[in-house]
Amino acid sequence: MDIEAFRKAGYQAVDAICDYYTKIREMPVNSTVEPGYLVKQLPDHAPEKGEEFAVIAKDFQEQIMPGITHWQHPSFFAFFPSITNFESILADMYATSVSNPGFNWNCSPACTELEMVVMDWAAKLFGLETSYHGSSGAGGGIILGSASEACLTVAVAARERCLRILTEGTVSQNGHHVNGPAGGNSNGSNGVTTGVDGARVKATQVVIPDDLRASSTPKMAAIILGMEFRALPTYRKDDYALRADVVRMALEEDAKEGLIPFMLNHIADIGAILKDFPTTYLHVDAAWAGVCLALPELRQTLQLDPINEYAHSFSTNFHKWGLVAFDATALWVRDRELLTSALDVTPAYLRTAQGDSGSVIDYRNWQLALGRRFRSLKVWFVLRSYGVEGYQKHLRGGLEMANVLEKMIQGSLDFELLVPKSLALLVFRYHPCDRQYSQTELNDLNRRLHASLATRGDIILTQTVLPAENGEEGTFCIRFSLGNARTEKKDVVQGWELVVRLANELEK
Amino acid sequence: MDIEAFRKAGYQAVDAICDYYTKIREMPVNSTVEPGYLVKQLPDHAPEKGEEFAVIAKDFQEQIMPGITHWQHPSFFAFFPSITNFESILADMYATSVSNPGFNWNCSPACTELEMVVMDWAAKLFGLETSYHGSSGAGGGIILGSASEACLTVAVAARERCLRILTEGTVSQNGHHVNGPAGGNSNGSNGVTTGVDGARVKATQVVIPDDLRASSTPKMAAIILGMEFRALPTYRKDDYALRADVVRMALEEDAKEGLIPFMLNHIADIGAILKDFPTTYLHVDAAWAGVCLALPELRQTLQLDPINEYAHSFSTNFHKWGLVAFDATALWVRDRELLTSALDVTPAYLRTAQGDSGSVIDYRNWQLALGRRFRSLKVWFVLRSYGVEGYQKHLRGGLEMANVLEKMIQGSLDFELLVPKSLALLVFRYHPCDRQYSQTELNDLNRRLHASLATRGDIILTQTVLPAENGEEGTFCIRFSLGNARTEKKDVVQGWELVVRLANELEK
Repeated sequence: MDIEAFRKAGYQAVDAICDYYTKIREMPVNSTVEPGYLVKQLPDHAPEKGEEFAVIAKDFQEQIMPGITHWQHPSFFAFFPSITNFESILADMYATSVSNPGFNWNCSPACTELEMVVMDWAAKLFGLETSYHGSSGAGGGIILGSASEACLTVAVAARERCLRILTEGTVSQNGHHVNGPAGGNSNGSNGVTTGVDGARVKATQVVIPDDLRASSTPKMAAIILGMEFRALPTYRKDDYALRADVVRMALEEDAKEGLIPFMLNHIADIGAILKDFPTTYLHVDAAWAGVCLALPELRQTLQLDPINEYAHSFSTNFHKWGLVAFDATALWVRDRELLTSALDVTPAYLRTAQGDSGSVIDYRNWQLALGRRFRSLKVWFVLRSYGVEGYQKHLRGGLEMANVLEKMIQGSLDFELLVPKSLALLVFRYHPCDRQYSQTELNDLNRRLHASLATRGDIILTQTVLPAENGEEGTFCIRFSLGNARTEKKDVVQGWELVVRLANELEK
Repeated sequence: MDIEAFRKAGYQAVDAICDYYTKIREMPVNSTVEPGYLVKQLPDHAPEKGEEFAVIAKDFQEQIMPGITHWQHPSFFAFFPSITNFESILADMYATSVSNPGFNWNCSPACTELEMVVMDWAAKLFGLETSYHGSSGAGGGIILGSASEACLTVAVAARERCLRILTEGTVSQNGHHVNGPAGGNSNGSNGVTTGVDGARVKATQVVIPDDLRASSTPKMAAIILGMEFRALPTYRKDDYALRADVVRMALEEDAKEGLIPFMLNHIADIGAILKDFPTTYLHVDAAWAGVCLALPELRQTLQLDPINEYAHSFSTNFHKWGLVAFDATALWVRDRELLTSALDVTPAYLRTAQGDSGSVIDYRNWQLALGRRFRSLKVWFVLRSYGVEGYQKHLRGGLEMANVLEKMIQGSLDFELLVPKSLALLVFRYHPCDRQYSQTELNDLNRRLHASLATRGDIILTQTVLPAENGEEGTFCIRFSLGNARTEKKDVVQGWELVVRLANELEK
């Protein structure tokens, strides 16, 4: 494809994207294709001769688009938001046009430096304390591809730190002060073991296991690092919150068995416990909710103070609710040297004068992979185009919709919220008030309600199951996730009225 | 930004990209900015109010572009090619416009199915045997972000397989036939140990440690998995090739110490040795060269037959020489169930009827992260736009340039090739014939030659150091890497003449 052919195809792509967003509200939100729909349509081998791009672009509309679920649709309430926007599309155009593997500052100095800049912008936007800022010289931020990658990356840093304490009796070699013991939280605890230098080291992972907000990433990190995994149960009577004494008990039990705790995920008000477990590293993985730290009124709820006091690292996904298209996971560490000393495996052909002198960051030494995309550009475009005001307005919009929905659920005699509203996420079930229902009957009703919702093209909601307790089966329920940029109040009201109508149509 | 503002900004971006490629040949190839150039220019916090996109686009040109090194420039001979093209830019536009996290088939069926289709296209393009194809039902391909990620992913599969053999005495549970012993290669061997279930398991990693083609990815995987790492030396007299008997000796030594070998990287003609080491998993990491399997005339050199006979998995980077913009690492496995059984950690809210029924692939269970970008679109656009013919023509172009350069180096009395030409990569040094030079003198000369090249804006070449032997210091030399899409013969000739001229200007 030559330059003029690209100009034509590029204009056409821009127009096609404009058309898409003009029509998106009128489109079905989810794809209704059958498994194999595309495999059947496409040839089973690449064409021998090159094809005209006009044909390829037409096939994108005719073959690919029917198999796209529209995550930007105003009635997309499933999973969690995965927002893209025009700023991100433009950033990807520019970034791909100057694509490079980005592993060194030298690969393209602008890519490294813009990442340093926007990650400090975001650290300030979220209220992170100065030792998380790159400008502190001690810590700093990096943009990775996923929360899993962030979790795995800090697990390597945590192991490095643990081993240093065990072998050298010291935490850090570069003058960076680690704020004493680390605080952990929250609704459950998972234990994982691995062998390090002959000692049995235990990574205690404190996660939220209620299946509403639990992420699979810590478990994945444990699998990769070759650790075992177990979970401590939590209960409805505690609103699925883990009590501090439970954490202490678990850690003491492990200590008795000779296990050395070294990593805790998620944060709460139980940091003080960890004074007695100095090898413990605290990573706060706030993949979904973390961007709401941009709202001063939420910082206490979201525990900014303990994050600033106790945590060793913090991560959140710009690419969920945070207005930057997938992928863009923000990770901040307070001691970059834990990463670089564990991860620097620079062969001679990747060495550069600037990197050797320490005058620049070579981000490859902060991450597991060598190459990296120019992701900071989309963060820059978004933060500049929205401004802090626009960013906050977007987040508050999602919270407001959630308030509207919460009121509607609470005002209904036939529905119940099963856990307190969490920011823009509501978990409810149908529970008709006409007679007594058993847990099994309610699960059946709600399964059928979800199934009837799932066949439609005008709404998407995800199911979940709260953990079993008291010998009863787990609680099947439905998640209503808000925060998408195009969702308006009328969409939430319309979506809820649809749920109510379909519930009323169910045979009880 | 509303739809019409995007249309305007989108057209403008397309035009800017067209301008860039119109002028690229006349631009300096590398950025000459000083460390901190951008950090100094930008504000230290995000703007409070949103800005007009026209201002942001202007800043991209004025602030970012000067810090970009032009990897698509015809005189970019450093590192390795990292090709982008118009097809990839267009694919990123479309993909980002329908962005979604892609973890399930349901997230957007088109994304999963297109990946299945193009990975089968590519498996055929590269001559991979049918058990690597997704259509076989047993194996299949996935597009990941980096060779490191591929290496780490298969390391988890390798560990799964090793543990099954140790605990169950069997290789695979799903009827997939593993082709007996695995073959290893090549120019060196690295040993890594870890504890698995109390047994000391050893991952012997056979890599090319001559620093020309050695990748840092296997070492990184070892670090992450908590293994130790050591390298066996190789020598110039063997052209830095590892002999089969050395591999056997190393494995037998480890066996005597009670270590269990479980993973070998890279392939050669020594597969037969591994009959005696059945826990060994063979992954072929052909990050750079693998795409050349698209050329039938190179398949014997690139050992396609042993890959098809012995390997358990194979990976190559589309995003180097392979015409697809970063990131797009292709990984094929022959037993997908090794991945899914190790990596499936599906919580209830990610379960779907289609996934549970097994009728679709949920790629999240093939990889370490949950979310994934719609990378198959750029592979589809590229393979269709170029066709097999165009793809082959591009690769052959790089090989031809390398032949031209090889002849010029061989024809010069004052330069020597230090290892045989490897596809489109040449490693040489300046070695004037006017008198005898010591290794130290030659290293000094070549360091100065490389330094004088590095200050220029019209060429980029990377240095490397061949390993020390016979008590002498290592050999400093210069890499000349071809394969970029815009490079023509005249650029190679001009680049070489520049090297010769600068060498002649050096004070000896």
